[in-house]
Order: sequence, then C-alpha cells, then structure tokens
Amino acid sequence: MIKNKPLILVVNDDGIESQGISFLSSVIREIGDVFVVAPHLNRSGASHSMTLNQPIYLEKINERKNEFICSGTPVDCVKIAMKKILPRKPDLCISGINHGSNHSINGLYSGTLHGAMEATIHGVSSLAFSHLSYSDTINFQPFGSIIKKMTHSVLEHHLPQGVTLNVNFPNINFNQIKGLKICQQGKGCWSEEFKYVKKNKSKTFYSISGEFKSDFNDKKSDSWALKNNFISIVPVTIDSTSCLTQELNYLEYEF
Amino acid sequence: MIKNKPLILVVNDDGIESQGISFLSSVIREIGDVFVVAPHLNRSGASHSMTLNQPIYLEKINERKNEFICSGTPVDCVKIAMKKILPRKPDLCISGINHGSNHSINGLYSGTLHGAMEATIHGVSSLAFSHLSYSDTINFQPFGSIIKKMTHSVLEHHLPQGVTLNVNFPNINFNQIKGLKICQQGKGCWSEEFKYVKKNKSKTFYSISGEFKSDFNDKKSDSWALKNNFISIVPVTIDSTSCLTQELNYLEYEF
Repeated sequence: MIKNKPLILVVNDDGIESQGISFLSSVIREIGDVFVVAPHLNRSGASHSMTLNQPIYLEKINERKNEFICSGTPVDCVKIAMKKILPRKPDLCISGINHGSNHSINGLYSGTLHGAMEATIHGVSSLAFSHLSYSDTINFQPFGSIIKKMTHSVLEHHLPQGVTLNVNFPNINFNQIKGLKICQQGKGCWSEEFKYVKKNKSKTFYSISGEFKSDFNDKKSDSWALKNNFISIVPVTIDSTSCLTQELNYLEYEF
Repeated sequence: MIKNKPLILVVNDDGIESQGISFLSSVIREIGDVFVVAPHLNRSGASHSMTLNQPIYLEKINERKNEFICSGTPVDCVKIAMKKILPRKPDLCISGINHGSNHSINGLYSGTLHGAMEATIHGVSSLAFSHLSYSDTINFQPFGSIIKKMTHSVLEHHLPQGVTLNVNFPNINFNQIKGLKICQQGKGCWSEEFKYVKKNKSKTFYSISGEFKSDFNDKKSDSWALKNNFISIVPVTIDSTSCLTQELNYLEYEF
C-alpha cells in the first residue's frame, strides 16, 4: 500500500500543447503530486535520442501545476526533470497519451515509449500510453478510470527492474473494448514512400510517408489484441540482448 | 558460400566526414559492392529516431565510390538507401565504425547501432562496429582483418531473423586483445550533469555532460569483456518484449 502521496513525472513526445498530456496529467493529479515536463514542440519519432553538442532550455510555464517545457527530446525531458526539477526520485513516470499507435515495431521509433524507458533506466517504474487514433481530438475521458487503476496497481506492485509498460488503446467505441491483455510485441514493418519535393543544385529533397504492414495472426501479439478489441500491454525491456546468443558461437574465438 | 559479389550498405551516425566510416567502407569494398549513405552532420545520440513532418535531402557526393549524404538520421539513411539508392535489397548492412563506446546501455542511444537495426527490421543481416575511443583519430588498421572475417562469416551463415550484432572494440593496444566474445548487454546508467549556460527571459539554458556508471562484475556482459581485453559482440533484438510477462498477469482483466 502507498502511504504517502506518490511523486509522479508525466512526459510525452507530442509536446506540451497536445490533448493527450493534458488529459493524462489531469487524471494522474487525482493520485499523486505531478510534475509535467514535455517537449516545447512535437517530437514524435524521437525514439531514445538525446541532445548532444548543443544546450537545451527549460522553462516553467505553470507554477501551480508544476508544468515545464524543454527544448530537448523526451529522453532529455526525463533526464533534466530528475536532475533539475523533481524534489526527489519519482515513484512513477507516465508518458503520453500519444496520439497514434505505438504497438508492434512502432515502439522502437516512439518518443513516448522511450521517454518512459529512460526513467526505467534510472530505476523508476514507468508506463507509456498511446491511442491508435492520430486525431488531435480524441475522447480520452472513458480511459481515465483504466489509467488510474493501472497506475494504482503499478504503484502497489512495482514493475520488475528494467521493464516499462507499453500500453495501447484501440481506436473503437469504448463500450466495444473487451479488456486488458498482456502481449508480446507484434511483428511489423513500415514501407516508406519518398516523394520528390524539389531539387536544389545537387540536393534532392523528399518528404517521407509510409504504410505500416503488420502481422495480425499471432494471438500473443499486441497487433492481434488491438484488432480484437483489447487494450494491449507489452512489457518492454531496456536489455536488448537477443535470446539467440548460442546460435552465434561461430563468431567467437580467442587470439 | 557467396557466389556473386554481395551488395553491402554502409552507414554511420558520426557523419560522412568521420574517419570511422571512411576506414570501414574501404575495408568492405574488398568484399562486396558498397554503397555509403551517411548523415551530412554528426548525428550521435540519434537512436532510432526518424524525421517526420519535414523533408530530408539526399546528395550524391562521390559517383565512383557510390557515396551519398542525407540530411536525416541514421535510420532515415537506411530507409532512403533501400527505397531510392540501392539497385536491390542489400545482402548486408554495416554501421560504423563509431568513435566512442556503444556497449551496455549506450546502444539504446546509439545512431550507429540503430541504423543497423533499421536494416534488420527490413530483413537485412546487420552489424554495428564501435571503438571505445572517442578520439577523431584512431588507428583502425589492425581491426580491418577482424571486420572482414566477421563480414564473411555473417554473409555465409546469415544472422537469425530480427538480430543485429553490436560489436565494440576495446581501447587498448591491438596486441593486448585476447579475442572475440559473444556477450549480453551490460548493466549501466548515465548520470548527467546539467551545467548552467545562460538565462533568456524565462528560459534557462543548460549544457549536458555525463558520467557513465557501469557494472563490470557480470562475466557474461559486454562491459566485463571489454574491461578484460576482449572484443564484445552483443546480439541485439528488435523485439523488445521482456521475458517477464508472466509476472504482470495482475494487470490483465476482461470487462
């Protein structure tokens, strides 16, 4: 049981102006003392990148709500929050709610998930929430009670060391949702299209768009769960070692 | 056995001007048909980030050597190489040689490793090489034969699906190196320092520096291997699902 009010860091990658972080922080304020540290701009696709070789800035934008913006990436936001803002190590870090999918391979590109993973590296239990709709205006309201229940559960049980929860909400009417399911990361791949924009001397400019190809047949996967009206929860690890190390012994030798 | 000359994509995160990619591509040209696609600037710390919401450019800088620069991240370089440059799907993608360590948790921040991992997502066997020295001028020469031997091995055996090799060279005299060792990702964490730079109205600017804290006691880890004069090879996976999913069943329920 949590005796004192927990200290909770809220971050995202869509930036401080997004509806997702505004709703998330309002819900989490019912549970704990909340500090919000978000990128000043949309940093979608930032993954686990951090800012090197140039300064970043921090600005308090709301004293009463403990809200800050940072010119860095989501990972920078977590790092600077822990060193320059929070009064102590937080009990939890919650990231999101992302406007758009972070299931399957998408998590690898996601600043939402990797902001939370940075807190995990520092020994803080962390969750990332995403909604499969890319719309700027999503009715997050029905998800509030689920987020609160999950937050209470994680505060009570803690997560295993090195594990972050990657939670995705399906883009369907809330009353169609069947439940919450622990899943494995589904298989998938983006196929990009590079559209010609202009030529400037020897430089050719392209805009990037893409189509996501996913395998929805694996019933253990988050892709299957979401397609079948479940909220998916993938426990992701900061240890990226493959379990197939023994298949690679042919590469090992001594001089 | 490889019958035809293999097609090999070479990328990095330090940028086209770095000594590491220059040496790597010259070595790999002895094995296959090489295309080099590198960021136009240093993109260290880019992780698996990609450019969204703005165009990127591509520029051929050396016709004879098939060398290109791209204004995007290492992941963008791989994506655009596969769609706009390479005549077919490559047989291999090799990233590096990075000037600086990518062992332990550092891989998570690394554009070098994640460039290679992007190719893995597209079903291409991929390797990332890093040298523990951050110097701009490293004597890479002695590592040439090791890189060639490993490249031949991977071309012959292929890597398991979804696996990238994260290879780190220790920063010692070459004749002190004991061999190559398959390892697990070591435990470690950066402790950052944010140094005050200036204040501009309500924005406070900081520069980031940090100290890396690593656990060198685990004999299975890359950190141990490198400290004990081995070249470390960590097979990393693009599937970040934790093996601890069963410990989290308390989060699962149906409505």
